[in-house]
Amino acid sequence: LEVAVFIREAWYVAAWASEIDDGPVARTLLGRPVLMFKDASGKARALLDRCTHRALPLSKGEVVDGIVRCAYHGMEYDGSGRCVRIPSQDFIPDNARVPAFPLKERNGLLWIWTGEAESADPSTIPDLIWLSDQAWGVKGTLFTVCCNWRLIVDNLMDLTHLTFVHGRTIGNAATTIGAETQAERVDDTQVRVTRWMMSAAPPPTYVRAGGFTGAVDRWQIIHWMLPSVIRIDVGATDAGTGAREGRRVGGIRMQNINMITPETETTSHYFWAQAHDFSPGNAEITERIFQEIRTTFLEDVGIFEAQQTALEQGASDLRLDLISDLGGVQVRRLIERALKREAQASAPLETVVA
Amino acid sequence: LEVAVFIREAWYVAAWASEIDDGPVARTLLGRPVLMFKDASGKARALLDRCTHRALPLSKGEVVDGIVRCAYHGMEYDGSGRCVRIPSQDFIPDNARVPAFPLKERNGLLWIWTGEAESADPSTIPDLIWLSDQAWGVKGTLFTVCCNWRLIVDNLMDLTHLTFVHGRTIGNAATTIGAETQAERVDDTQVRVTRWMMSAAPPPTYVRAGGFTGAVDRWQIIHWMLPSVIRIDVGATDAGTGAREGRRVGGIRMQNINMITPETETTSHYFWAQAHDFSPGNAEITERIFQEIRTTFLEDVGIFEAQQTALEQGASDLRLDLISDLGGVQVRRLIERALKREAQASAPLETVVA
Amino acid sequence: LEVAVFIREAWYVAAWASEIDDGPVARTLLGRPVLMFKDASGKARALLDRCTHRALPLSKGEVVDGIVRCAYHGMEYDGSGRCVRIPSQDFIPDNARVPAFPLKERNGLLWIWTGEAESADPSTIPDLIWLSDQAWGVKGTLFTVCCNWRLIVDNLMDLTHLTFVHGRTIGNAATTIGAETQAERVDDTQVRVTRWMMSAAPPPTYVRAGGFTGAVDRWQIIHWMLPSVIRIDVGATDAGTGAREGRRVGGIRMQNINMITPETETTSHYFWAQAHDFSPGNAEITERIFQEIRTTFLEDVGIFEAQQTALEQGASDLRLDLISDLGGVQVRRLIERALKREAQASAPLETVVA
Repeated sequence: LEVAVFIREAWYVAAWASEIDDGPVARTLLGRPVLMFKDASGKARALLDRCTHRALPLSKGEVVDGIVRCAYHGMEYDGSGRCVRIPSQDFIPDNARVPAFPLKERNGLLWIWTGEAESADPSTIPDLIWLSDQAWGVKGTLFTVCCNWRLIVDNLMDLTHLTFVHGRTIGNAATTIGAETQAERVDDTQVRVTRWMMSAAPPPTYVRAGGFTGAVDRWQIIHWMLPSVIRIDVGATDAGTGAREGRRVGGIRMQNINMITPETETTSHYFWAQAHDFSPGNAEITERIFQEIRTTFLEDVGIFEAQQTALEQGASDLRLDLISDLGGVQVRRLIERALKREAQASAPLETVVA
Repeated sequence: LEVAVFIREAWYVAAWASEIDDGPVARTLLGRPVLMFKDASGKARALLDRCTHRALPLSKGEVVDGIVRCAYHGMEYDGSGRCVRIPSQDFIPDNARVPAFPLKERNGLLWIWTGEAESADPSTIPDLIWLSDQAWGVKGTLFTVCCNWRLIVDNLMDLTHLTFVHGRTIGNAATTIGAETQAERVDDTQVRVTRWMMSAAPPPTYVRAGGFTGAVDRWQIIHWMLPSVIRIDVGATDAGTGAREGRRVGGIRMQNINMITPETETTSHYFWAQAHDFSPGNAEITERIFQEIRTTFLEDVGIFEAQQTALEQGASDLRLDLISDLGGVQVRRLIERALKREAQASAPLETVVA
Repeated sequence: LEVAVFIREAWYVAAWASEIDDGPVARTLLGRPVLMFKDASGKARALLDRCTHRALPLSKGEVVDGIVRCAYHGMEYDGSGRCVRIPSQDFIPDNARVPAFPLKERNGLLWIWTGEAESADPSTIPDLIWLSDQAWGVKGTLFTVCCNWRLIVDNLMDLTHLTFVHGRTIGNAATTIGAETQAERVDDTQVRVTRWMMSAAPPPTYVRAGGFTGAVDRWQIIHWMLPSVIRIDVGATDAGTGAREGRRVGGIRMQNINMITPETETTSHYFWAQAHDFSPGNAEITERIFQEIRTTFLEDVGIFEAQQTALEQGASDLRLDLISDLGGVQVRRLIERALKREAQASAPLETVVA
């Protein structure tokens, strides 16, 4: 069952790297309780949040000098999960070892792998340079929301919802009416959706952030990466100045970066950040843009939770697809294919033979 | 399983008609989420509370001029559930249609049919004239209570509980001791229980409402209609003035009307009203009587919820029947028969052949 | 399933005898709702907390002169569960009988048997004389905690946790480091673990209660009785005065008495008392010691509940055993054996034959 719910063989964001600067972080990821902390060398580590002895969450204890001490009988573990001390005895059995998960820091994020450890290849971690490049101002956070991860992916692949859900910030009629949309499968793990709203009225956030007084040429380029990283390159310039042809005259450009990590089957960690390329060093502008998007995403949360409740009450599946779901439908197929591949890989041999 | 829990092929009260005057009402009925609203012609309508596109409850959106607009991507539906607008495209697919439920207004109530639509015959809706006849003063409301619908039916069929649960209002020792009770099956869908308490002390509510100073002849005539409408014709006159023989000399008469609609397997919508034939136009008296019965029914709610908890903890069934359950036992048999009939009707063919 | 969860054929503490002096007590014990009250002769009785008629918990009603009256239709039951009055009819059916459980008072406790009634032998009730002997000052209470009963047993069999969980009261480094531990199976229903901490620093509670200024010889003798009564004989004298050889020169001695009764599979009633043999008649000292242990046990509650959550999230079992679990492992084997015996006794015959 679990195989059908999560794609396991993938890197997921586990935390903002800065989160564990202040101490260990306990978080459920893909249904597994995980403790993240810095080991003796200062490296970020992830262990199953269970003592090997009596299953007490290690997060009930404390981390001193990179060593985790269980709160119950004082067993101590290093960053690899190996037990290094049992206060009541000198002998440490070989199996006194807490399962560890590969954890890598990249672009200020900690990425975790909860599948087969030998398959974990750090080179496949998405390189979200906008999060760590000085040319961009950026701020991000984490929402933990009560819905299955796929509802969030679906939401981000169909931006016509901006018109109806986000009319106070980034949406207006033009986000739906007259927008030109193209979708392409880049490869088996990526889909790109390109949308242009030409000579369109700018939505409220764009007026506030970009100071537009007339019509704009606006773009939304959605980059989905299996299973659930979605970067949306967005921006606008004054209409007719050539943005679509690749000329950039003034205007604003932002990267809306979304990284969704299942917590359980019915809840998700929604990590996101907003980067902007205008006045990148101005913290006040970064904060103001972050707040606009924060307001916007909180509106989505209400949608997600109502959909999740509907699913749990028996709305068996999302049903009718519209033209605007063109990219989302391709994403769905690639997700289904990956889930099926994992299900087959983990099926017992006799089933395959039969 | 569901077949065994609810009788589907029946009309149930979905709302007081006045409820949707102020706007749409979303309510779970027999396990199904339903949105009720007025269509463009002012007619009350009931749709499954789900958008066809991504299952968002339509009740998250709004109704403008009788058209429901989904809050997510703006799809619009008319009162029949037919999609009439998709903002992001011109083409409207045939299957963009929200399931609709037959909904009929009668006596100030909206009655819904959640079974096979072609079986819905409005002529079988109970005609509760006391709710709309000027000769009666009436006020009703809705309690949503945490128990299976059958516990409420059972409660109303055995009025000896008035003595123990409702001693502050409509019960006293005479409601149990010396009451004469007869039960008869009117037909396959109706049971009538007739109770007379002759030369009995009047209970507190009767003293307050009827001004009785001595003994009364009091009646309770319980009319049950499959599955869960129960009207109780009650009243009293001064003792010995001939009420039982059909002479009515002064006194008071009321209709206690109960309409129970399952919300889920373990919760119920308990619609009820109290009508009185004395000073029918006096709103103050109507209100005072309503408050007496409201107090009374809130006492029952505590009983229902404790019984439900007991059932969920494994009290496998209501067990011992008493003589006072004579009517309730007949009702239970007719309910079981209807449930069995529906289970057979919905069983797959091969099962029937075997 | 239930067989595997609880040992049914055993006496369990249901209440402190004093609890029902003030009126009936309703409590779920081994998954069964139980009402305890004094019958007409003043004897403590335990009935299933369900009316035979419509399953209403009898605890919703009242007990007058030893007779329980149901709050719904007024049926009355005596201490044996026999119905003695049905207000609405003269005839009392034979099956109007609420199941009763054997209940015995011993040492100020009420002990219940929820297994086969004919197997209930009061002579097997543990004789916890320290609870009722004038030579001991004693005070006890009840914690109802959110964990399976076996987690509490496990906790009490391995006292190295005192060092890490109870450093503010009864634990210090010496409770783990250098403690000498022996475990022995007394018989099929008893295990004894003996621990000596020689020439050790006294922990805070011992300093406060015993006035020790130097090192002590401290003992902990854990007596486990199937399924879940654990008495711990503890104490200390000034180091080197011969306590281990059986000489008692001053110092303090206490009996820590723990009686665990499953409420449900995931919650437990944890009855406990602390007795002391110094100044036994001094209520102030009794109270002070009680408060020390109360503080201590509340620290354990946090551990229990975190373990239970871990178990429910899939920590399939307590796993690695340490040397300090020597006694606990023997206890676990005897519990498993008893559970298996009951499972076999209740298995249908054909299964045994096959």
